[in-house]
Amino acid sequence: MDFSSKLLENAVNEMSQLPGIGKRTALRLVLHLLKQPAQQTENLATAIQQMRELVNFCSNCHNISDTALCEICASQNRNAKIVCVVEDIRDVMAIEATSQYRGHYHVLGGKISPMDGIGPHDLTINSLIQKIEEGKIEELIFALSSTMEGDTTNFYIFKQIEGFNIITTTIARGISVGDELEYADEVTLGRSIVNRIPFENSLKNS
Amino acid sequence: MDFSSKLLENAVNEMSQLPGIGKRTALRLVLHLLKQPAQQTENLATAIQQMRELVNFCSNCHNISDTALCEICASQNRNAKIVCVVEDIRDVMAIEATSQYRGHYHVLGGKISPMDGIGPHDLTINSLIQKIEEGKIEELIFALSSTMEGDTTNFYIFKQIEGFNIITTTIARGISVGDELEYADEVTLGRSIVNRIPFENSLKNS
Ligand SMILES: [Zn+2]
Ligand SMILES: [Zn+2]
Repeated sequence: MDFSSKLLENAVNEMSQLPGIGKRTALRLVLHLLKQPAQQTENLATAIQQMRELVNFCSNCHNISDTALCEICASQNRNAKIVCVVEDIRDVMAIEATSQYRGHYHVLGGKISPMDGIGPHDLTINSLIQKIEEGKIEELIFALSSTMEGDTTNFYIFKQIEGFNIITTTIARGISVGDELEYADEVTLGRSIVNRIPFENSLKNS
Repeated sequence: MDFSSKLLENAVNEMSQLPGIGKRTALRLVLHLLKQPAQQTENLATAIQQMRELVNFCSNCHNISDTALCEICASQNRNAKIVCVVEDIRDVMAIEATSQYRGHYHVLGGKISPMDGIGPHDLTINSLIQKIEEGKIEELIFALSSTMEGDTTNFYIFKQIEGFNIITTTIARGISVGDELEYADEVTLGRSIVNRIPFENSLKNS
């Protein structure tokens, strides 16, 4: 693409660094900003800058939080002995929206994916193992998406905690294999967490 | 969506102001930025801010340009008597990529669209008429997309300049009706501008 303006070209190049945004889409977005009041661009720029600079993660569950301990971990009404293992904040939001779950979460921050160079130490697995070693957890619910990476991650954690006396379960799949949690409807997802099954049982099926 | 962080929510809300970006996509983009080095977010924010604040438009053709007169208008090798009327910089880029056109452009900045509240005075039509009144133009090539808004805009300009002794043409449509110029392949688009036809002829077909 041959731009007539370095300023425009630079904005398009940076915008097209985002996943799923090609050069043409980036140009369309940037031209849209040019037609809107300058304040909109200013608001967008400030919002992403502040988020990136000031974002905080809960010291207990590693979810994104504006406070040191997130609302869920700080609540007296939640059962800290039951911990649901998820990939990121989108899964927490999806399960919370069902109002069916009263335990805690543990946000891994991703899935093990050798293809993308993501190993166990890039995730918050050590912190999870530590909570288990300290006897803080009675039940661990695996709620990663049932993709190859999700299964690998579940299995890696499962192996690490084999010696401990805790119940491991996985959410019941009313939703089809391979589907992302965040796209499931609330009723199905709510039911699948209520009807969770022992993790060993899920291995037999695959 | 119930976010656990105001900073995150704010970033998602601003991102989802962009056309075609829903809340879920915005969340995905923002979480991606969180996983990348902070410098990437800083670069994106700075690039769009600088573009929005410092962007300049060519005083002759109204295309985006970092200089008072764009490269095309400033060139000695282009024929200023032939002017191609386009919607925005994407069309200029598309036609320039064919290397088939040696005239000038006139960038309208949009199309007449009563539905979106865009009238003739929101575009650079007056500046085009003025150039015609000053006798600077011999041929006007209409190259707006052949949508209802494009046809309306072409026809509005055509009526405004009826009294003047200039040739009006429209690019030959090798590409299907309704297609956007920017998505046409270079060969087809190049041919369509070489084989342009009198504007009156295009009216007979519709
Ligand atoms: Zn927490
Ligand atoms: Zn120009």
